[in-house]
Amino acid sequence: MSAPNRIESALKSALALGDGPARPPRLGAALHDAVFPGGGRVRPQLALAVARACGDHEPALVDACAAAVELVHCASLVHDDLPCFDDADWRRGRPTVHRVYGENLAVLAGDGLIALSFEVLARAPTLHPERLGALVRALAQGIGASKGLVAGQAWEAEPQVPLAAYHRAKTGALFEAAAVMAAVANGADPRPWKKVAAAIGEAYQIADDLADALGHAGALGKPVGQDLQHARPSAVHTFGLEGAFARIVALRGEAEAALPECPGRGHLTDWLGRVVERLLPSEQALAQVGCQLHAS
Amino acid sequence: MSAPNRIESALKSALALGDGPARPPRLGAALHDAVFPGGGRVRPQLALAVARACGDHEPALVDACAAAVELVHCASLVHDDLPCFDDADWRRGRPTVHRVYGENLAVLAGDGLIALSFEVLARAPTLHPERLGALVRALAQGIGASKGLVAGQAWEAEPQVPLAAYHRAKTGALFEAAAVMAAVANGADPRPWKKVAAAIGEAYQIADDLADALGHAGALGKPVGQDLQHARPSAVHTFGLEGAFARIVALRGEAEAALPECPGRGHLTDWLGRVVERLLPSEQALAQVGCQLHAS
Repeated sequence: MSAPNRIESALKSALALGDGPARPPRLGAALHDAVFPGGGRVRPQLALAVARACGDHEPALVDACAAAVELVHCASLVHDDLPCFDDADWRRGRPTVHRVYGENLAVLAGDGLIALSFEVLARAPTLHPERLGALVRALAQGIGASKGLVAGQAWEAEPQVPLAAYHRAKTGALFEAAAVMAAVANGADPRPWKKVAAAIGEAYQIADDLADALGHAGALGKPVGQDLQHARPSAVHTFGLEGAFARIVALRGEAEAALPECPGRGHLTDWLGRVVERLLPSEQALAQVGCQLHAS
Repeated sequence: MSAPNRIESALKSALALGDGPARPPRLGAALHDAVFPGGGRVRPQLALAVARACGDHEPALVDACAAAVELVHCASLVHDDLPCFDDADWRRGRPTVHRVYGENLAVLAGDGLIALSFEVLARAPTLHPERLGALVRALAQGIGASKGLVAGQAWEAEPQVPLAAYHRAKTGALFEAAAVMAAVANGADPRPWKKVAAAIGEAYQIADDLADALGHAGALGKPVGQDLQHARPSAVHTFGLEGAFARIVALRGEAEAALPECPGRGHLTDWLGRVVERLLPSEQALAQVGCQLHAS
């Protein structure tokens, strides 16, 4: 099965857990709309790419890891769109969960998805149940209130924001969780993969800031100019457009340099190239702001 | 160490995980205020009572289970108090988390506490790491979007509410998780303990409805009359005051009848009696509404 099919199939199985007449119907619909149709599914793709590089010895457990990080990501988007954060009406080209189902069900859908992410891990068939503890810890820390995405969001409510810690927590932490979990599920040392994922996560966050500043609303399917509007720290404010662009290219190099020796190293390098290519703003978008840049 | 001390100590250790300069300070304060000072701590008390009845062979793991269910309970209170739910200004006699720190940090504090609850489980020292899967599943289902407390809250957003399913999910599910986790941690069969906990949970929910209807604002430390104000299903509307009172007494009998043979059966029966005694409204409160009831 292709990676995208594995991911969608794992997410469908996850959402089916406990679905039925016992579930309040509007909550069920909100949960579904929070997860389908998806965006780039880049975190579960990272999990699958790392697993493949490590030999993919535990495909069912890796599918659970991939689904778990994506469920958490979807939960964070639903909460992030709430009026008390971004107050966003649109996400992925459709009305946001709280616009359709109300703020109360949006809060609950996010909570339910976080709980479900751990349940999915604990239910996954595996030859190595002793790996569950490390998987749960990695996922919890990716979400967590210290260096996880909860901390990342919370930095926005502080008067002083350390940009690197903010970005690493807001975006990097869940990328790191995806890669660490895939490595742990395969019995591989997670430490080099954490570095690879941290670089990809930072590149991804900078790309998001670039897209927000350059304003491809159509491509993002969500409102743009949010960083400026909410006075949020942004890599574009810090590095400028050219600096942000150059930083993404540098991070690709950092990620490649951190790759450990493994059976699927070549595949992962190719995958990394494609991901970073997609992150860079189009020449058209750059031309609109009178900017000319070169990737190499 | 006494049960209350074990619980407070386990919660302090949990909150200390990842505390430090990496944590956004206002989020850290919100997390602390969501958990301390506590309310009745009845769910972790149930976990410890069940563990004691089962021999308390794994005290560190049980402490983690007790802390985990209480963290989830605290998370649910923080989210439940939000303007899109109860819009409560007071909880346990103090301003609610969102009133002090804002709605955004209240949402994040709840999310962070849910993630922390799983991390605490996965970090607990134990001789039986193979039990973690069942513990994570039990906790996730207690929170969950099918029959857990998320589902319970979500029933309030449906036009048709099945009262038994609503109460069991909103309150019973986390009581059941507490008892099941304590039994599993001790290697005991969790099924009879689930029945015991379901009866206690239902009694607790009916007592909460009674307190809300009778209006001991002082005793509860939170607003009363919320069920009527929010048009929520309430055992008092369904059974009447006398019927609700009688149901609590009957549930004590159901819980006692479900107790399995175990070393600490006598202790648990005593504990149950004390808990139910505290749940019943005082004669004074009943006299104020012109109602005379007898427990037996």
